[in-house]
Amino acid sequence: MAQASDRIQIKRALISVSDKSGIESLAKVLHRAGVQIISTGGTRKVLEQAGIPVIEISEVTHNPEAFGGRMKTISFQIESALLFDREKDAQEAAKLGIEPIDMVVCNLYPFERVKNKGVDFDTLIENIDIGGPTMVRAAAKNFKYVAVVTDPQDYPEIVRELQENDGALSYETRFKLMRKAFNLTADYDAMIATTMDETAGELSVRLAFDQAKILRYGENSHQQAFFLRQRKTPLSLYDLQALHGKELSYNNIVDLYSALDAVRDFKQTACAIIKHNNPCGLAVGQDQRTVFEKAWAGDPVSAFGSVIAFNTKVGRHTVEFLHLDAEDKSQRKFVEIVAAPDFEQDALDYLFLHKNLRVVRFDPNHLQSSMEYRVLAGAMLAQTPDRKLLEKTEIVTERKMELEPELLEFGLIAVRQLKSNAIAVVRKNGDDLQLLGMGCGQPNRVNSTHLALERSVQNLRNEFNGDEQALQDYIKRELAKAVLISDAFFPFPDNVEIAANYGIKTIVQPGGSIRDKSVIKRCDELGVAMIFIGLRHFKH
Amino acid sequence: MAQASDRIQIKRALISVSDKSGIESLAKVLHRAGVQIISTGGTRKVLEQAGIPVIEISEVTHNPEAFGGRMKTISFQIESALLFDREKDAQEAAKLGIEPIDMVVCNLYPFERVKNKGVDFDTLIENIDIGGPTMVRAAAKNFKYVAVVTDPQDYPEIVRELQENDGALSYETRFKLMRKAFNLTADYDAMIATTMDETAGELSVRLAFDQAKILRYGENSHQQAFFLRQRKTPLSLYDLQALHGKELSYNNIVDLYSALDAVRDFKQTACAIIKHNNPCGLAVGQDQRTVFEKAWAGDPVSAFGSVIAFNTKVGRHTVEFLHLDAEDKSQRKFVEIVAAPDFEQDALDYLFLHKNLRVVRFDPNHLQSSMEYRVLAGAMLAQTPDRKLLEKTEIVTERKMELEPELLEFGLIAVRQLKSNAIAVVRKNGDDLQLLGMGCGQPNRVNSTHLALERSVQNLRNEFNGDEQALQDYIKRELAKAVLISDAFFPFPDNVEIAANYGIKTIVQPGGSIRDKSVIKRCDELGVAMIFIGLRHFKH
Repeated sequence: MAQASDRIQIKRALISVSDKSGIESLAKVLHRAGVQIISTGGTRKVLEQAGIPVIEISEVTHNPEAFGGRMKTISFQIESALLFDREKDAQEAAKLGIEPIDMVVCNLYPFERVKNKGVDFDTLIENIDIGGPTMVRAAAKNFKYVAVVTDPQDYPEIVRELQENDGALSYETRFKLMRKAFNLTADYDAMIATTMDETAGELSVRLAFDQAKILRYGENSHQQAFFLRQRKTPLSLYDLQALHGKELSYNNIVDLYSALDAVRDFKQTACAIIKHNNPCGLAVGQDQRTVFEKAWAGDPVSAFGSVIAFNTKVGRHTVEFLHLDAEDKSQRKFVEIVAAPDFEQDALDYLFLHKNLRVVRFDPNHLQSSMEYRVLAGAMLAQTPDRKLLEKTEIVTERKMELEPELLEFGLIAVRQLKSNAIAVVRKNGDDLQLLGMGCGQPNRVNSTHLALERSVQNLRNEFNGDEQALQDYIKRELAKAVLISDAFFPFPDNVEIAANYGIKTIVQPGGSIRDKSVIKRCDELGVAMIFIGLRHFKH
Repeated sequence: MAQASDRIQIKRALISVSDKSGIESLAKVLHRAGVQIISTGGTRKVLEQAGIPVIEISEVTHNPEAFGGRMKTISFQIESALLFDREKDAQEAAKLGIEPIDMVVCNLYPFERVKNKGVDFDTLIENIDIGGPTMVRAAAKNFKYVAVVTDPQDYPEIVRELQENDGALSYETRFKLMRKAFNLTADYDAMIATTMDETAGELSVRLAFDQAKILRYGENSHQQAFFLRQRKTPLSLYDLQALHGKELSYNNIVDLYSALDAVRDFKQTACAIIKHNNPCGLAVGQDQRTVFEKAWAGDPVSAFGSVIAFNTKVGRHTVEFLHLDAEDKSQRKFVEIVAAPDFEQDALDYLFLHKNLRVVRFDPNHLQSSMEYRVLAGAMLAQTPDRKLLEKTEIVTERKMELEPELLEFGLIAVRQLKSNAIAVVRKNGDDLQLLGMGCGQPNRVNSTHLALERSVQNLRNEFNGDEQALQDYIKRELAKAVLISDAFFPFPDNVEIAANYGIKTIVQPGGSIRDKSVIKRCDELGVAMIFIGLRHFKH
């Protein structure tokens, strides 16, 4: 029995690669270690030109390479040499004249690359590798005795191990290479299968994830959870760099995604503050510290324990707003995560003062994904993301007004990030744009409108110094300058009434209700301007 | 060039199957149609016993079946016969003595079944099929000339087509069989790869979905969307039966899942009313109509346009509550979906009165899934579902009370279904259990407490007949009997104060805050009983 510690001496290797990068130097090392090299077609030429002696595959198979390359390696001789059990089948192999092959170096025809080039169907079919997967799978099945090398990036490590162990590879290495091989053939046929389904006009989706990290627990401590990376994706949230603090939790990752998603579309400096997967604070502007303060002011109580993201490199002055070093501990703002594309060193030094604070480096611009997936009990919903902000800006009321495009865009991004029913009250605050109050996650829109306006009033109260009468004037004045945005249309005029009662003068909504007329009429009666944008932004 | 309409006459077939069901009758049809049959090992015996003449595979390969069955079909002869281009390569094939094989009937070693039996690792490895996938993939690649049959369920259809077309199969059929073949090998290697990763102690996840239905749009009209079924899953939400009404939308499906999920755990008749992916109504009891009414009363305004699920067969009296035939149209209750495991015929007749009302048959008990997945920008969170309701029932206050286990369980299921921060106020109403009010989706718990209690008061107001003073007494009395449940611990005593102010006497929460003591103290001061259950139920 082969034991976990068993090393296998590589004596004969079969090399047949489509991607020839690095193959010369690997073959040279094998050759110097006394390994016989069997090879095919193009690979053989490359190796021979590099002066490496090669056994032509047809010397082993006793067959020609045939049918325009469709048949090169597949043969009783090659697959037997890979597959036979070195112990049980040794005599039978000897009798049949089969000499073992101990290593396969193979990568497959580049089906995916060719597909992405947009070739004709016959060329695509020609790029389905048959011999490669057969060799790779045979070698992988017999990994107890055979090493299967499918990735040029592994060559240096293989070389190192061969040199350290006099031309032998360990069981652990062969096991790892076997796993890689079956993952490769699984990916390969997944790509072919979905492409052929697509060709037939039927969508199928295959998603593969690995590198699972075990999280401490899931949304709750009695749930087990894992965080995985999508295979072969160049950009993944998984690649975030945790610079400091406790391990990220399941809920941290959910909120982190929302925080980064909320700031990714802004050109100016932006800050989002997420609590329970909704932004309770959002601001954009020039000065990062000011933007942070204005985002925080969106809900200064809920902001404690939040997940915060910036879209620009974070400076020390910005994070000093957290007062992590305040002697009065009640002044210290505890948050779960601060995330940004980068940090100044002195900002990091400051953040590291709090031993539990998680500091994450990740560029929100790396959140690209072409589809959103929601897996539901043996089924899946797939959709393109909600990227378009508006269809039009149509003032539908008697009251006209100029709405700055930046404020409108800001407000739409804010409301898009909120769970439906969602209402966002936004304003220009100095030169910055600020989410003044939000209502979300409600079964009816009236609740959300109340929540957003109550929050706005509370925030205006927080920022104002003066007596109650002056405060009331201030609130009216500020709300008259603010814009209330709804993620979906108003089914009734009631929301207009509530908003007008608070002093709101500008409302933005998609429009499209059968009662639009009565909603507009109520706006006209109450002196409110209303803009239809023609697009809804539900999010659940 | 083969055209889409080209039929291929099947003259030689290779049959080598692990699952032998139906193979005799297929082979008989082939034999009668004059097809030469090549076969291997166990399959050959079965066919010969059925009196079907068979060419032994070694007559074609000129090799023995070797190495305990590891080598049977793989050979230059077999794969050439499958792979060569019948036009370009015809001469070369003739020169090499390769006779074409036009059909492969093959299914693979049952790796997954053997794995699920829990065999030892060597047996598992032995069940990795190498020859099968090679034949299948070769035949699939050359589907222009070769039919690849991998699923016994396809035999009858193949037989029918062969008989109708004098032993020929169409391009369309061969294309479909090819897609099935590559999906099979993709699934097969996906299973092997994840199993080998698991053996190495590393979790990887591969999910495959097909049968995509194109939805009209996604969460919003500017998003494209699809609904897919997970391959090979026995139970899928996808299998819902839409009995009536418009096509289900993306948001319908999201809400439908939540509605079914909310009622699946109850033994008594349950009804859930979902709006924007949260239950705004939930009740359980004996009489279905009463339960429906009590669920509706949870938020009779939001319930319009909702998605409703029952866990028992729906009767006519129940759905008559919707008053779909009311002359006064304002009495008609418009809802998006009514879903249940089944419906009485007269209930269906009634529901079909409303032409847009979607009626869905699906048993909530079929929502089993072992893991929950959340795909986030090239990464994935996976977790076990939140199924356990509580760890303990510890009364932590001076005030003691008996809380009926059914009401506690009901309340915990309610709060578990609500997006965090979540507060549910539940009560026993007659013999039934009812969600009296809920608050959810808020960045702070105080908002949710306010929302849940305001909703409760409003609902009590709706159900009460009498003057204002009597109403106030009624509200106090009913809230004193109700239970307020929080999905997570109270970080401060403020929620206790709000609840007590409304007259709540019993609060259920996980406990576990560093300020538990001050929260309990406040309960004692206010005469409130508090129960710690030791488990949190976050949901985002």
